[in-house]
Amino acid sequence: MPEFFNVLTPAEARATLETRLTALVGTERIDPRKGLGRVVAETLCAPSSLPAFSRSTMDGYAVRAHDTYGASEALPAYLTIHGEVSMGQAARLSIGPGEAAKVHTGSALPEGADAVVMLENTQLVDESTMEILRPVAPGENMLNEGDDVKAGAVLLEAGRCLRPQDIGGLMALGILEASVFLRPRVAILSTGDEVVPPEREPQTGQVRDVNTHTISALSVQSGAIPLPLGIAPDSYEQMSGMARRGLADSEVLVISAGSSVSARDMTSRVIASLGEPGVLAHGVSLRPGKPAIVALIDGKPVFGLPGNPVSAMVVFDLLVRPAIHRVGGCVQPRTPVLLAARLTHNIPSTTGREDYVPVRIEEGDGETWAEPIFGESNLITTMIQADGLARIPLDKHGLSAGETVSVRLF
Amino acid sequence: MPEFFNVLTPAEARATLETRLTALVGTERIDPRKGLGRVVAETLCAPSSLPAFSRSTMDGYAVRAHDTYGASEALPAYLTIHGEVSMGQAARLSIGPGEAAKVHTGSALPEGADAVVMLENTQLVDESTMEILRPVAPGENMLNEGDDVKAGAVLLEAGRCLRPQDIGGLMALGILEASVFLRPRVAILSTGDEVVPPEREPQTGQVRDVNTHTISALSVQSGAIPLPLGIAPDSYEQMSGMARRGLADSEVLVISAGSSVSARDMTSRVIASLGEPGVLAHGVSLRPGKPAIVALIDGKPVFGLPGNPVSAMVVFDLLVRPAIHRVGGCVQPRTPVLLAARLTHNIPSTTGREDYVPVRIEEGDGETWAEPIFGESNLITTMIQADGLARIPLDKHGLSAGETVSVRLF
Repeated sequence: MPEFFNVLTPAEARATLETRLTALVGTERIDPRKGLGRVVAETLCAPSSLPAFSRSTMDGYAVRAHDTYGASEALPAYLTIHGEVSMGQAARLSIGPGEAAKVHTGSALPEGADAVVMLENTQLVDESTMEILRPVAPGENMLNEGDDVKAGAVLLEAGRCLRPQDIGGLMALGILEASVFLRPRVAILSTGDEVVPPEREPQTGQVRDVNTHTISALSVQSGAIPLPLGIAPDSYEQMSGMARRGLADSEVLVISAGSSVSARDMTSRVIASLGEPGVLAHGVSLRPGKPAIVALIDGKPVFGLPGNPVSAMVVFDLLVRPAIHRVGGCVQPRTPVLLAARLTHNIPSTTGREDYVPVRIEEGDGETWAEPIFGESNLITTMIQADGLARIPLDKHGLSAGETVSVRLF
Repeated sequence: MPEFFNVLTPAEARATLETRLTALVGTERIDPRKGLGRVVAETLCAPSSLPAFSRSTMDGYAVRAHDTYGASEALPAYLTIHGEVSMGQAARLSIGPGEAAKVHTGSALPEGADAVVMLENTQLVDESTMEILRPVAPGENMLNEGDDVKAGAVLLEAGRCLRPQDIGGLMALGILEASVFLRPRVAILSTGDEVVPPEREPQTGQVRDVNTHTISALSVQSGAIPLPLGIAPDSYEQMSGMARRGLADSEVLVISAGSSVSARDMTSRVIASLGEPGVLAHGVSLRPGKPAIVALIDGKPVFGLPGNPVSAMVVFDLLVRPAIHRVGGCVQPRTPVLLAARLTHNIPSTTGREDYVPVRIEEGDGETWAEPIFGESNLITTMIQADGLARIPLDKHGLSAGETVSVRLF
């Protein structure tokens, strides 16, 4: 089976895949209070206005603004106190010219009032008369009905992840049910004759499976449900059987390829055999992570991740996570956070390749510093010590100590 | 009950509280694979070395480095091929002077070998003889036993949150059980005569409860279990009864104070009555969020959050979240991510007060921009539209368009 050897840049690989992906999951209706992190599947509009009534944003007196014009400490305006509006109740009173009513932060405004004078700008003369020491403009220290959101306005667009404030906003409007996308399922297949499950004591030549577990946890972080398929030996028949079954039960398939070249070739042949259109990128100009395979099978994204855990994490972050978002209906994923930090040491690189170097983040001299953790890229402890990955752009020969680098934080 | 009116800066309030907090929760033993985000309660050391055997990091030939010295394309070194090491198996062979054995990425090294020549720097002469075209130094293209982590070395310190790579590292070492802290419980009490649950249709003057739900979701994001206590009216007896019972069942108590000054005073009196030492900060030089109350009751952090949802979120982020981490045993919480972005508009402020302004993040002209979302601070939709909060430091009069600002991303 001849393989078109097609190495793309990380951005190209991502774009090529993303443009061909759509939401592959169904929807369900849930209580938004149980929906933190879920992706909204319908555009949610405000069924009523917020606030639902004109309310004060200060403790003070509701007035007709006109009555306060020209008021000062030297020449106060005198108003008649016409009662008080209790919290949580309709105003049940209205004020006319020359009148004021006591209000609290959040209480309804009485009819006739169009502004609120803050308590500290008033002075009581007697029980029924007060001085206004500063003028207010109409609308000052109050909210009109609908100032927060108007009935019918879009509150949340379909494809957004529910954050705490989004849930709060839905509750404010009494939206107790919303359609969300089901979590996409990510089938994860570890491969390699040398790989044994963590429960087993490895013999010389064997290693315990790491990638199933890091990729499962990364999938959970990305809003997906991981489906670990187990460990396939370096056998074309077994690997393709497990991959095929895994893909049937999921929306995304991630194969952690064996680490040797022949094992990687087998992964690539297995992926190509799964369906159409097949492999889109056979290699990404990325380090670590160059041997990554990006494929599309019947609308589902399929990835061959390099066997070493660090490469696998880098490729997951750059390519798998956005694909999970896309098939899960999330069209406005949270932008990956790129922290700007100054390098403590030079990092060498090669033009035409995007490098990711594990770094520790430290504060010093009022600045944020990224200290590269050098070492073999396939050491899991490097990633345990790291706070994030510093990116050396495609067009750079490397970066010098003191230069500012973008760090993707874990 | 006279109240010592004590306004602290956000940093002071946080430090005052943090130095008095310790882990308040018990521990449990779990499978780390189910422990994403949990806080490790014991220092975890490597029970064995990783890798457990010398292994190749390339496809190629295991050799004695000495035999390759001086080799070049013009004058190759000739070695006898002494077999192949299969993946996942012990080497079962050793090489002597002038000998080489075929190895794969990740396979064990045969006895006698101290380096690996990459496949591309070799050439087969016949089935049993090969040319080495470039020399290798001892240790090149291989890992020695323990190069990743040595038996007995610290893998994860107590107090760390489990990330995907940490779980992977534990699996690599066969650590299938670890002690983690129980999730701290955050009791949440909404207060205010005007507040009704989201299920109820508010009458004029009433508003639906938002803070219980945003604070619950924020607590979940912080690794805690929210315990919503319901809504207390502006009654000292009812509020203090609910607060007392909530505090007994939890490690953290958050009271969303009524919005009027008198309601806030009542919250403060209720908190002061709960126990010793009581209120540490009665107000924080922060906007929004100034009326925040920070207290310590019998070792437990207690907060009075301003009633408006935006202020409540800001105070949660700056003060409640770090306290949850501390009582939950997390001593190395993830640093809040501060994104550097340039302001699209001026933001006014006042010296001596830390201001947080909701902003949208946009990319343009190759830079990251923060666009302030102006509006009343108590509008929940402002937060729904925002990607984060831009910070105007304590010592600034404001920031001008084009200046760089730190943004805490949601």
